[in-house]
Amino acid sequence: MALATAAGKGAIAVIRLSGPEAITMCQAIFSGKNLLAQPTHTIHFGTIRDGARVVDEVLVSLFVAPHSYTKENVVEISCHGSDFIVQEIIKLLLKQGARLAQAGEFTKRAFLNGKFDLAQAEAVADLIAADSAKAHEVAMKQMRGGFSAEIKALRTRLIHFASLIELELDFGEEDVEFADRSALENLIQEIQSLIRNLLQSFALGNVIKNGVPTVIVGKPNAGKSTLLNVLLNEEKAIVSDVPGTTRDFIEDEISVEDILFRFIDTAGLRETQDKVEAMGVERSRQKIEEAALVIYLFDVNELSPTELAAELQALNTKNKPVLAVANKVDLATNRNLSSYEAVAPVIFISAADKAGITTLKQKLIATVHGENLNTGSSTIVTNLRHYTSLEQTYEALDAVLSGLNQGISGDFLAADIRRALYALGEITGDITTDDLLENIFTKFCIGK
Amino acid sequence: MALATAAGKGAIAVIRLSGPEAITMCQAIFSGKNLLAQPTHTIHFGTIRDGARVVDEVLVSLFVAPHSYTKENVVEISCHGSDFIVQEIIKLLLKQGARLAQAGEFTKRAFLNGKFDLAQAEAVADLIAADSAKAHEVAMKQMRGGFSAEIKALRTRLIHFASLIELELDFGEEDVEFADRSALENLIQEIQSLIRNLLQSFALGNVIKNGVPTVIVGKPNAGKSTLLNVLLNEEKAIVSDVPGTTRDFIEDEISVEDILFRFIDTAGLRETQDKVEAMGVERSRQKIEEAALVIYLFDVNELSPTELAAELQALNTKNKPVLAVANKVDLATNRNLSSYEAVAPVIFISAADKAGITTLKQKLIATVHGENLNTGSSTIVTNLRHYTSLEQTYEALDAVLSGLNQGISGDFLAADIRRALYALGEITGDITTDDLLENIFTKFCIGK
Repeated sequence: MALATAAGKGAIAVIRLSGPEAITMCQAIFSGKNLLAQPTHTIHFGTIRDGARVVDEVLVSLFVAPHSYTKENVVEISCHGSDFIVQEIIKLLLKQGARLAQAGEFTKRAFLNGKFDLAQAEAVADLIAADSAKAHEVAMKQMRGGFSAEIKALRTRLIHFASLIELELDFGEEDVEFADRSALENLIQEIQSLIRNLLQSFALGNVIKNGVPTVIVGKPNAGKSTLLNVLLNEEKAIVSDVPGTTRDFIEDEISVEDILFRFIDTAGLRETQDKVEAMGVERSRQKIEEAALVIYLFDVNELSPTELAAELQALNTKNKPVLAVANKVDLATNRNLSSYEAVAPVIFISAADKAGITTLKQKLIATVHGENLNTGSSTIVTNLRHYTSLEQTYEALDAVLSGLNQGISGDFLAADIRRALYALGEITGDITTDDLLENIFTKFCIGK
Repeated sequence: MALATAAGKGAIAVIRLSGPEAITMCQAIFSGKNLLAQPTHTIHFGTIRDGARVVDEVLVSLFVAPHSYTKENVVEISCHGSDFIVQEIIKLLLKQGARLAQAGEFTKRAFLNGKFDLAQAEAVADLIAADSAKAHEVAMKQMRGGFSAEIKALRTRLIHFASLIELELDFGEEDVEFADRSALENLIQEIQSLIRNLLQSFALGNVIKNGVPTVIVGKPNAGKSTLLNVLLNEEKAIVSDVPGTTRDFIEDEISVEDILFRFIDTAGLRETQDKVEAMGVERSRQKIEEAALVIYLFDVNELSPTELAAELQALNTKNKPVLAVANKVDLATNRNLSSYEAVAPVIFISAADKAGITTLKQKLIATVHGENLNTGSSTIVTNLRHYTSLEQTYEALDAVLSGLNQGISGDFLAADIRRALYALGEITGDITTDDLLENIFTKFCIGK
């Protein structure tokens, strides 16, 4: 049992109970129809009572096993959205012998009862946490089994070969080869290529899930704080277009076309114009170190094309993408703007006039998609645990390959293939340990 | 349409739509069964889609008119509890022509469609805001129509007499008296007596709804901050007994047996021990002025019974109840404690040892119930609007009474009775104006 909706005041709150006794326990505190005699997926009005005292008027939604999220009997009590009432109802259910659910327990039960596999279960948490369209899309695909299907297909093909090799072992000394060695080698190379794509997709997956760490650097008075405010305020305006959906707006993030950009050290930017100078080159380096994307902003009236070239060289961003952005073009009456473009691809803006911002955003997106973040796989890995398992699979397959090349015996091959199968199986939960499960589900919120 | 659950991350969130087109609009973005062909009070699994893109897997609860909260068609979409997903679904519904609900609009429609009367509708908001058992009980009773029934019974009896008097007026010059004047006088006195009880109950109602403003005063080092912390920490311990139900804990409030005590100026108490002295007598007076209940705390080792008597006299609380509390009894080896009780009813505690706290709490409760807060009526008025209407009714009835004594003509009596009926009718919403409704429902949260 747990509160399933966000805490705080609202029109309604939903308390969820799951387990064989869920309906019986709810019935014990419910005054209305006999819930035990009702069909699944029906809603019943009544009162929750503590003896004669009416605690609330509620709607009870019934989900009879196995037709529920957990495949167990599930009851959802939709009560008035006050913490006090939620607490009162939870206390009554505790008296009936219900216990509070642990974090992620409903989803864990759904997994254990075969509702979905582990990667799908993990996607539920990702889905709730997703705050950009792209992160949402990836989590949704994973929850609906797209990722799992891909992993399972790989695993099935490996299992086929593993069983042929195990069969050879049964024949012991006879030196038969049921498993075609060159076909196995081809298969493994094919699987490794797929896994490589998945591993590469993790860079993009990480960006999608956590945002692109971005830094704005430049000389004092280049207009860094103005630019940041323009970017953030545009976003705020979009968010507040849909009232009633209070969204936690994080001051230092903007979402551009599905991708989240997370600005580093923006507090400093906004509080003083010459902070970069004050803190010196070293601090500026650190910021660039943390970033995946650097915006170098300069006042087009203060910096000549030659100086720009020198500045960009001095930045030393170690292959990180840098966007050179020329600010204050509205004041640039005497300069030949195209001379800058000879030095580097420059985006011309006027932060004060909000001019050129759309182009800048398009360039931000193009940079993220262009910089080694593209992936050959349409499936994107966002989860570090999956990434690690894929790496382990890849290594085990390497061992199989070198074993094949050295013509080692079937039992060694079988051991390495089993290792690869184990690592793949951990992703979907075909292989699980208690520790693994606990580690995964304690990261969920209570009530899910 | 509006989000009906609290904003923020949770396992699920519920979006509610109401109106003739609610089910059709939901169907337009829903992939699953044909919702239009399903019976009321059923739940359907499916996906919300934006074209081919899956926005979420959801459960849709159907309430077919008039079997819903608003008596209109109502759909509740239970989606994953992420603000991003909620926003996406709301955007899709906006495209279908739905509009965002105003604050309290669902409840307002329920009222306008005759689901319940105005006092009941107001109780819904009180119920959600209730954060003590007593406030909850009063709001629940009002929501379930207890208060309305009482008002309606009074009104029906008055209407009976009013119609008799109006009948007399039809006979014009004939000077008949269908309405027995002495029976009318008795009735009005009876109704006034009931209204008096209701008006008196407002003091308690206010305390129940808003808490008892309480102040702890005393000399420096009497132990004021320790006592406050003991009271607050006990409460915290109780609250945290039920994990998972995060309750906004307000630092300066404790709830004792259904009643909320709200401490005034506690920040000062905790930050310095000798604040009262520093800020002087005047500031202390002000605090007592704001309070409904005064705790005078003294160190039993520092104050003799005679000094206590002088201190209590000097407090000048203008008839406000004062609890004299003797602290540090654990250190009081040489004193005759009973000598204090000769001066005033003293509660002996040791805040440091948490001794005597239960007795103190019992005394707090007894004081609230004893001090003019008891009411002859089992119904308690908590709403200022109701209080004002009851006052107007009472005044109009006074006018009827004095009219009867002066033997004035039926048409004047009828006018005063109508005035009383109007005021009573405003409580339950038998009489409403647009302004009145707007005033009431804009105080609701969106989604209710």
